[in-house]
Amino acid sequence: MTTVKKLGERKIIGLILEALTLPPMLIPFGDDVSGVEIDDNRAAILKIDMLVGKTDVPPTMSLWQVGRKAVVMNISDFAAKGVKPIALLVALGVPADFLKRDIEQLAKGLNAGAREYGANIVGGDTGEASDLVISCSLFGLGKRNLLMLRNGARPGDIVAVTGFFGKTTVGLKLLLENLVVPSAARKSFLNSVFRPNARLNEGLALSRSGAVSASIDSSDGLAWSLHEINRASGVGFEIDNLPIAPEVLEFAKRKRTDPVELALYGGEEYELVLTIKQRFWNKASQAVRDVGGSLIRIGRVVRKTDMVLQWKGKTISIEPRGWEHFKSGK
Amino acid sequence: MTTVKKLGERKIIGLILEALTLPPMLIPFGDDVSGVEIDDNRAAILKIDMLVGKTDVPPTMSLWQVGRKAVVMNISDFAAKGVKPIALLVALGVPADFLKRDIEQLAKGLNAGAREYGANIVGGDTGEASDLVISCSLFGLGKRNLLMLRNGARPGDIVAVTGFFGKTTVGLKLLLENLVVPSAARKSFLNSVFRPNARLNEGLALSRSGAVSASIDSSDGLAWSLHEINRASGVGFEIDNLPIAPEVLEFAKRKRTDPVELALYGGEEYELVLTIKQRFWNKASQAVRDVGGSLIRIGRVVRKTDMVLQWKGKTISIEPRGWEHFKSGK
Repeated sequence: MTTVKKLGERKIIGLILEALTLPPMLIPFGDDVSGVEIDDNRAAILKIDMLVGKTDVPPTMSLWQVGRKAVVMNISDFAAKGVKPIALLVALGVPADFLKRDIEQLAKGLNAGAREYGANIVGGDTGEASDLVISCSLFGLGKRNLLMLRNGARPGDIVAVTGFFGKTTVGLKLLLENLVVPSAARKSFLNSVFRPNARLNEGLALSRSGAVSASIDSSDGLAWSLHEINRASGVGFEIDNLPIAPEVLEFAKRKRTDPVELALYGGEEYELVLTIKQRFWNKASQAVRDVGGSLIRIGRVVRKTDMVLQWKGKTISIEPRGWEHFKSGK
Repeated sequence: MTTVKKLGERKIIGLILEALTLPPMLIPFGDDVSGVEIDDNRAAILKIDMLVGKTDVPPTMSLWQVGRKAVVMNISDFAAKGVKPIALLVALGVPADFLKRDIEQLAKGLNAGAREYGANIVGGDTGEASDLVISCSLFGLGKRNLLMLRNGARPGDIVAVTGFFGKTTVGLKLLLENLVVPSAARKSFLNSVFRPNARLNEGLALSRSGAVSASIDSSDGLAWSLHEINRASGVGFEIDNLPIAPEVLEFAKRKRTDPVELALYGGEEYELVLTIKQRFWNKASQAVRDVGGSLIRIGRVVRKTDMVLQWKGKTISIEPRGWEHFKSGK
């Protein structure tokens, strides 16, 4: 019989989906969040996530950082949909040899993550587990007409992101492969692993602007996120301005590794990946600047469902791969 | 340093609580569910729970039953508050050697649990974990004036439950200690472990009746539930009609064990424990009968905060103990 290790996360989700009786859904199953109608204008927005010590926590990350990150992962999905998070519930599975101060650090990190984005932890559950497990469930109220889903991208739209890619992937490589790099660069890479930020202000501003046709966060990597919009919207992408972080380009040069690989196929990054209606580009761009962020144009949506990258005069196919639980085996 | 094993679940929750910035709450922290205001009349009702394979799944329980139970645990808390569950999110931590059919069975059980009570699974997350972990998060909309909290019990109220106690405790004993009992009794005991039911119809009917002053489910055992209402309401209880299941009395006699212990200090039972305003007793009782259930009077609320049981002419103190994670070590 096939083990889940062989199946991989996407096929497991497929199996689960087959077993479910799905009701008519406000937001299609598989989008970043779920929605339940509250009234004509509003929807309850819901999300659950699980962080597991063994697979999701890199070496030397503190428990405060782990707690904070467990929350930020969730907030990032709300950011991508343009919904303000309100209340968070946390279920904690704790190994029996955890110490009192471990719990305190973890709880402070969880609280810090929530407060940073204006949410509060309002309930939870705790029990013993073989490995540290943090399951966060987030609730918010969204205006139904302002939700940014994955399925609205149309040919001609501009593809954009809220930041540069590759730093987290390099950071994880540093931690797992013990590579040596200059200390300032090291600090910046590790910071993106240990202290990720959700683009909540950007997401809320973009949602209000009405300029966005599709949106997703990039927690499974840039390539994967593009493919998710592609699948949900039935369109293709031509990326001609790959948003690689300058430090990552420098790192790739030094270590003779492929920067495209680092920027496209990473994961655990929390930028927003968006498609913007062309005529609203300036409005969207201004809306993000107004909250202190920046919107980077990286390509355009095309009719043909291919996914290609223009890079140094060549056309490269963007593959549907990235960070996947069970299979990646960090 | 103190490990969590020594601390126990309640102290761990205390530590977490200290680290949190709590907002003004519609429902006090620590009640069965959390609430967020939606409008003048309605509240979003939220709950998260975590079931861990190692500690929460007895031997020979099937994965279908495990999935179903993970949902029923959550529904039971909604039942106790009188809130109809609408949408469920499930985060699944799966051991790497789980098989395809294991996932299918688990997912079918989860779906069955949700559908049985009119809810739907609308989203989730999955990842690898050392042990099976199922975290369910439930959402519903409650009428604010009909919520049944823990803190409204007043002297003179009647204490009542929706069913008899002890069968699950005996069932767990049978599974863990390999005791021999007649096969019909064995079936009934194991059924209460493998196929627990939430008293949702009873909870909804009682909430509509307006007769209830305090309510909780009995997932941590009858004694513990009584003490929770006691703590939250600042009252005492005199229990004079301990609701022991007849099969449990019979079992206790045969095995020369204390039936009071079995009925009071178990856990994983999903009856409702309620206090009812005396003048509304008939109304409450009728409301429960109308949905096919029964309301059993077991005692009364008193001013003195003691917790006592009248049993065979003796007055016994009811201790604040029951099933507790980390410490019980099933």
